[in-house]
Amino acid sequence: MTDQTPATLVPITIAILGGTGKEGAGLGFRWAHAGHRVILGSREADRAVTAAADLTALLGGRATVEGADNATAAAAATVVVLAVPFSAQQATALSVRDALAGKILIDVTVPLVPPKVDRVQLPAGGSAVQRLQDELGPQVRVVSAFQNVSAVHLKKIDHPIDCDVLVCGDDADAREQVVALANAAGMVAWHAGVLANSAAAEALTSVLIAINKRYKVSSSGIRLTGVAPPGPPAGG
Amino acid sequence: MTDQTPATLVPITIAILGGTGKEGAGLGFRWAHAGHRVILGSREADRAVTAAADLTALLGGRATVEGADNATAAAAATVVVLAVPFSAQQATALSVRDALAGKILIDVTVPLVPPKVDRVQLPAGGSAVQRLQDELGPQVRVVSAFQNVSAVHLKKIDHPIDCDVLVCGDDADAREQVVALANAAGMVAWHAGVLANSAAAEALTSVLIAINKRYKVSSSGIRLTGVAPPGPPAGG
Repeated sequence: MTDQTPATLVPITIAILGGTGKEGAGLGFRWAHAGHRVILGSREADRAVTAAADLTALLGGRATVEGADNATAAAAATVVVLAVPFSAQQATALSVRDALAGKILIDVTVPLVPPKVDRVQLPAGGSAVQRLQDELGPQVRVVSAFQNVSAVHLKKIDHPIDCDVLVCGDDADAREQVVALANAAGMVAWHAGVLANSAAAEALTSVLIAINKRYKVSSSGIRLTGVAPPGPPAGG
Repeated sequence: MTDQTPATLVPITIAILGGTGKEGAGLGFRWAHAGHRVILGSREADRAVTAAADLTALLGGRATVEGADNATAAAAATVVVLAVPFSAQQATALSVRDALAGKILIDVTVPLVPPKVDRVQLPAGGSAVQRLQDELGPQVRVVSAFQNVSAVHLKKIDHPIDCDVLVCGDDADAREQVVALANAAGMVAWHAGVLANSAAAEALTSVLIAINKRYKVSSSGIRLTGVAPPGPPAGG
């Protein structure tokens, strides 16, 4: 694995709540491949262990992915990722609240409201992740990212991801660490401002679903223009 | 002018309320250059006439831009563009309401709330333009577009605009006409779904302002990926 690991990477432990879903598993796959320790979380430990074994097989000996119930995964990690359906966002995060204190929580949640998932339906107040931060309180460093990246591409490691990542958060240092994690997963990522700005990324996902439908494609995304991609992060 | 006019262009009359501002004037310049009749509107006719003369000079004999008060401009046009500051959005549109019946109103308004214009502050309910449509009623065919295109590039006619246009609206035919108008102005434009989806474009503008600030650039934008730009519009 060392030949895939950038010299600057400092391995950390990442828990992915909802790690049995496509988006969470895809991110976990990329981070494990990059050299981080990844623990998939699920409400049922068995399901997480099975999904982790699948990822380990896909990694072909390069790394081992672990599985656990959400609380165990969150407790063991330094960075926790929330990748659950919108309807489970608040309950899942609150169920592991104690384990999140002082940690970075990367919220990948998109406020899709079935059946009209191609229609922007932001919660009152704008951003779903802002609402979550308000609920969790300042002891959790919530950062929003990855809402616009199609899960389709994540598990194809040699497939460049043709979608930029907007990283929003009120804590600049936490944001910087998430930018670095996106880079480690092979994505271009941007400091996109305060956490409330996540409303743009959240809303954009419904627009991309509408675009997919209208133009008969599977995974449209966005790139920023008029600005040069920043270099590799200074840290890991 | 005929050599610049695509064979398919059917000239229409476009009124631009707030046409003395940078974004409105820039769009007017491009449409006049493409062969459309453009009337800049302003609360004060004198200011519109002056701004129109400036554009006419910039066009170097290719076309003449007219100026009038907002009501006169709106009454004379088949397509009306609203390009005013957020604080004037509702009042300006309502002041010409009678002239808008049955017409397409292209709303370019971005709900920026000074001084924190790099922070997403969508109105209650999500989209500012959706709120306007609710106010104007179904007799006005409101379409949202151009929120993310920096005015910096609009007046440089040989300058390709490196930003896609998200076109949102509940009336598919009206949306199609706005896509065609964006194409005529040299931009790639996309059917981005229902009018409520404009929340994404509206919020994205604050994100782009945050990006401009953070990365010290003047006019960041977006491009869609994973989808091929559609061909030229069938109509004009």
